[in-house]
Amino acid sequence: MRFFSDNTGSACPEILAAIQDANTGLVPAYGEDAWTSRLDECCSAFFGTPVRAFAVTTGTAANALSLATVAPPYGAVFCHQEAHINVDECGAPTFFSGGAVLVPLHGEHGRLEPAAFGAALAAHPTYVHSVQPAALSLTQATELGTAYRPAQIRALAELAHERGLKVHLDGARFANALCFLGCHPGDITWRAGVDVLSLGATKNGALAAEAVVFFDTSLVRDFELRRKRAGHLLSKSRYVAAQLLAYLESGVWRRNAERTNRLAQSIGQAAGAALLHPVEANEVFLNLGVGPRQALRAAGFEFYDWGVESAGEARLVVSWDQPEADVPALCAALGRL
Amino acid sequence: MRFFSDNTGSACPEILAAIQDANTGLVPAYGEDAWTSRLDECCSAFFGTPVRAFAVTTGTAANALSLATVAPPYGAVFCHQEAHINVDECGAPTFFSGGAVLVPLHGEHGRLEPAAFGAALAAHPTYVHSVQPAALSLTQATELGTAYRPAQIRALAELAHERGLKVHLDGARFANALCFLGCHPGDITWRAGVDVLSLGATKNGALAAEAVVFFDTSLVRDFELRRKRAGHLLSKSRYVAAQLLAYLESGVWRRNAERTNRLAQSIGQAAGAALLHPVEANEVFLNLGVGPRQALRAAGFEFYDWGVESAGEARLVVSWDQPEADVPALCAALGRL
Amino acid sequence: MRFFSDNTGSACPEILAAIQDANTGLVPAYGEDAWTSRLDECCSAFFGTPVRAFAVTTGTAANALSLATVAPPYGAVFCHQEAHINVDECGAPTFFSGGAVLVPLHGEHGRLEPAAFGAALAAHPTYVHSVQPAALSLTQATELGTAYRPAQIRALAELAHERGLKVHLDGARFANALCFLGCHPGDITWRAGVDVLSLGATKNGALAAEAVVFFDTSLVRDFELRRKRAGHLLSKSRYVAAQLLAYLESGVWRRNAERTNRLAQSIGQAAGAALLHPVEANEVFLNLGVGPRQALRAAGFEFYDWGVESAGEARLVVSWDQPEADVPALCAALGRL
Amino acid sequence: MRFFSDNTGSACPEILAAIQDANTGLVPAYGEDAWTSRLDECCSAFFGTPVRAFAVTTGTAANALSLATVAPPYGAVFCHQEAHINVDECGAPTFFSGGAVLVPLHGEHGRLEPAAFGAALAAHPTYVHSVQPAALSLTQATELGTAYRPAQIRALAELAHERGLKVHLDGARFANALCFLGCHPGDITWRAGVDVLSLGATKNGALAAEAVVFFDTSLVRDFELRRKRAGHLLSKSRYVAAQLLAYLESGVWRRNAERTNRLAQSIGQAAGAALLHPVEANEVFLNLGVGPRQALRAAGFEFYDWGVESAGEARLVVSWDQPEADVPALCAALGRL
Repeated sequence: MRFFSDNTGSACPEILAAIQDANTGLVPAYGEDAWTSRLDECCSAFFGTPVRAFAVTTGTAANALSLATVAPPYGAVFCHQEAHINVDECGAPTFFSGGAVLVPLHGEHGRLEPAAFGAALAAHPTYVHSVQPAALSLTQATELGTAYRPAQIRALAELAHERGLKVHLDGARFANALCFLGCHPGDITWRAGVDVLSLGATKNGALAAEAVVFFDTSLVRDFELRRKRAGHLLSKSRYVAAQLLAYLESGVWRRNAERTNRLAQSIGQAAGAALLHPVEANEVFLNLGVGPRQALRAAGFEFYDWGVESAGEARLVVSWDQPEADVPALCAALGRL
Repeated sequence: MRFFSDNTGSACPEILAAIQDANTGLVPAYGEDAWTSRLDECCSAFFGTPVRAFAVTTGTAANALSLATVAPPYGAVFCHQEAHINVDECGAPTFFSGGAVLVPLHGEHGRLEPAAFGAALAAHPTYVHSVQPAALSLTQATELGTAYRPAQIRALAELAHERGLKVHLDGARFANALCFLGCHPGDITWRAGVDVLSLGATKNGALAAEAVVFFDTSLVRDFELRRKRAGHLLSKSRYVAAQLLAYLESGVWRRNAERTNRLAQSIGQAAGAALLHPVEANEVFLNLGVGPRQALRAAGFEFYDWGVESAGEARLVVSWDQPEADVPALCAALGRL
Repeated sequence: MRFFSDNTGSACPEILAAIQDANTGLVPAYGEDAWTSRLDECCSAFFGTPVRAFAVTTGTAANALSLATVAPPYGAVFCHQEAHINVDECGAPTFFSGGAVLVPLHGEHGRLEPAAFGAALAAHPTYVHSVQPAALSLTQATELGTAYRPAQIRALAELAHERGLKVHLDGARFANALCFLGCHPGDITWRAGVDVLSLGATKNGALAAEAVVFFDTSLVRDFELRRKRAGHLLSKSRYVAAQLLAYLESGVWRRNAERTNRLAQSIGQAAGAALLHPVEANEVFLNLGVGPRQALRAAGFEFYDWGVESAGEARLVVSWDQPEADVPALCAALGRL
Repeated sequence: MRFFSDNTGSACPEILAAIQDANTGLVPAYGEDAWTSRLDECCSAFFGTPVRAFAVTTGTAANALSLATVAPPYGAVFCHQEAHINVDECGAPTFFSGGAVLVPLHGEHGRLEPAAFGAALAAHPTYVHSVQPAALSLTQATELGTAYRPAQIRALAELAHERGLKVHLDGARFANALCFLGCHPGDITWRAGVDVLSLGATKNGALAAEAVVFFDTSLVRDFELRRKRAGHLLSKSRYVAAQLLAYLESGVWRRNAERTNRLAQSIGQAAGAALLHPVEANEVFLNLGVGPRQALRAAGFEFYDWGVESAGEARLVVSWDQPEADVPALCAALGRL
């Protein structure tokens, strides 16, 4: 039973159907198609404000292109030390921006705290010998499976904006956070001060589709040229746009996220004292100990170790198409450890 | 009737079926899946030599990543002035390589000639004040719808290798050239001296799938890291690999290319004296004159102007799913001009 | 007798004296010194308008930093095909800008012509698949030893500004052009539409000093950060600033340029029909023929061949400290060919 | 009395004399001169092994070019968190390398420890999602005024080499460390495993001159091209080379460093319990407290605060031309605090 990552999931039926529906003969390439044309409108409706939205096929592209649009080559981007952009993108934000440097910060349960960010920002030199504060990048849901409350994002974004920084949100698991919080999508984005969002769909049931959503639409021309030169403008764009439209309009985003959140809650409850972080999305982090962790694996559960080998920690992620029986089996196994 | 580009085509049934077949529950992400694992073997069989092959979703990514792997930041890449890398990728090869510069050369009917390339190479300074010759990039079929013969590639590649340059082949329409030439895939790649190939499938019926094929396998570790940091390693890699496997193994590549080649031949014959370049793939370039070109468009045919507005030239491209009736209609219209 | 380049010259006495005068104990580093503080004022007086000026030690740095400040990574910079930035800087403008591409154009005697530039600009695509016109870079005096008249620069700059491009002037031999034209420095810079100037001093008697002069002062913060991260902000900045102050304020620029211009004129006159371009600075280009060129070299004159070997062309450059007797000797030798 | 930095010092007489001596008429440019030609030999003699050495004008250029030569764009460079490359070069190593990321580590008194480096290296992921360990950069003397012993460098370099990393030494204050240790230059460079050294002269009496010294000479062609495209190859190279030759051959390096070391020792002794780090070069770090620090400044001593404002720490640096009376005055003032 696989709990490696929601990246291991397949594409959900609505997504495949949307691809099939878009498979209708000759249509203009490079985003001049009817599906891509509807993307702005669809995302504007979803977020409740006029936005510009662009489709790409990976989260790394969405993040790195977003950051390149808001940070100069000598820019500093503040982020949580566990952020995907910091640990899992092989330097993509630096590559796309032409040199911007990440400033990783601590923060409990994967969340940056305004005090810590404010202190780091205040301490950051602004003389010419230093990279210059340019952006704040938050992750929602965080890399440790927690969710920022709207007020937390707002407080962080205010600090950023006061100093002229732009705010980026890595929403690879945006739907999970949104369902957990039960708020409006605008409450954790533009109403809270987010300027640009990487809106993930792939982890939550799409085949390969992420939207970069600009709430600050002054940035889009620069973005479009950067996307093209990075090879992320697909010739047959309709197939990516169609996934995003189906994802947002069919309610797939909600159905899948609610299910994986619910299953993750069950696992978290079964874990008891081993639980490392509150479960507020579809990820569960456990402190099992090296021996029990090995026992769990021997019992047929696949997952990644977390942190240093000897700490005995584990990450388990529920995919949208996780077989229903996997979770009670896992819960039972956790009870037996 | 649309003759804009083969990028306007849909995905062919075998490709969609392959995606559907790959849609089977939880599988490891980032290329650790069964489909991606078979890609080397599949491509090695196709080319008749051991290769390493990697899937990406756009031709720009395939080309720019390939070139970044063979050219240093101060490298010069020789190419035809009409090459896609020179005119249609918004500087992607320069971006991916960290600065490499293209050296565009003339060449009749879209083909570089050994004499011209040899002269350019000999004339290129090698002192420290100049970018350094690093690679030769050829396009097969060329941007003007012609195909290099095996001996032509071999002659060019020999000149390149003598001077220590690597040879890249942009095979966005590789299948069309291959079907036209009727030779073995190895004859226009590794046997002719090609080190790395961008093997296109998207234009010829895939949804979004290109393979970067390394005949010089020493380059692959560098490539893999560059692909990741460029956001071109898909999490759900199976769906791109599955497209490529289906494309090569089902014969789709041949069936589609033979059809579009055949239809393009008909158009070329109907064009008579207006034909600008020999038709050796699925593209037809015509010198119609401004007025007749307008008349053709008014008759319901969609296509791109070529070159400067006043020259009255046109490019027409046949897609794999071009309605069969479009072509006799076009031929008749050409006859009436 | 050496006519290789004005780069072979030494530093003139006023420059060494200025360095010596600045050698006065402990002063703040990184441009916080009294010499650097006077640079804006000095250059503003020289150009007759408020400017911001920054010292660097090489012309390549001055040019590439200037261009990086005005061109985005996906920018296109139009220049003459003989421009130093195009042929002698190993890709520096591309490196510093993070990817901008040069668009080299023809132009008689080293000068771009408005018609040709206008045509190139009009023909340059602006869609997302292409690099975007961002800047025009002119060279004054040109790489072929000629000088743009004020009206010529103005006409070119107007075309550039109409399309939103910035105008850069590579003034590695600015003093030579200025002395030849006999105009005010403002006439060939800000009054003609130049936004940023690389003001060379090294070739004309400095040890190693070039000023980047911003007429459009909105660009300077970006410049300062780019200069630092490129390692071109000297810790002991006083010694570069002192050179520039002495160069502009002591009249060295004029004395040296007038002398080298005068000597070059003599050579040009002696050359007769062999002269390839009007002599309007301190460079002379000759079509000698392969044999006579060899004879001239055998007679003890050192210089660079120009263009392809077989063309028999030569470039001779007069340095500020060219021994006076070298020139009549050269003229006599030319007369004997 | 200024204790800001050794960058505030002037150029010492031997350096100015060398510049004057090199000021002899027309000589070939761009390093083809007699002074530059002797640089390899001079440095080889100094280090007791055949090396290749190259002159640049800033420490940032020396460091960033060195690192670009040993780290790919997706490389990780391990360094001390206080390293100049990490805090004072505005991202230069990332810029020059095309993206390499620094991994800053803790270490008492400015020195990395083998155990900590080994642990960081072991913990660093090597999968494709992460930047790849490529180099170790040490600073000698360190940024906190201490010196690595030869065995410490050797131990660190061994760990690096075992994993295939190259070893760079930032020797902005190399002479100070060398004089303090009383060892042979080879003992803290090539005999200890250093592959490339930034050998500083500017801080210790030169006008603007640093050598990049390659003990691993396979790297030099790449370096030379990177130097040129970064605008760090001076046309009148003789003046930088002449400074380096004078610096190494006249014994200036030793005389100046011994003096500043000696003066710093006096200050350190006068500081008593306020001393934060052992004085092993020409820098003294003091924990004065906010009030006494202010008092010291009010008494006429200029220096930089260190660390966060409220910590009350100070850095005082002795320059080669520090007036002799400054130091007893400072010592007395410290005694009065």
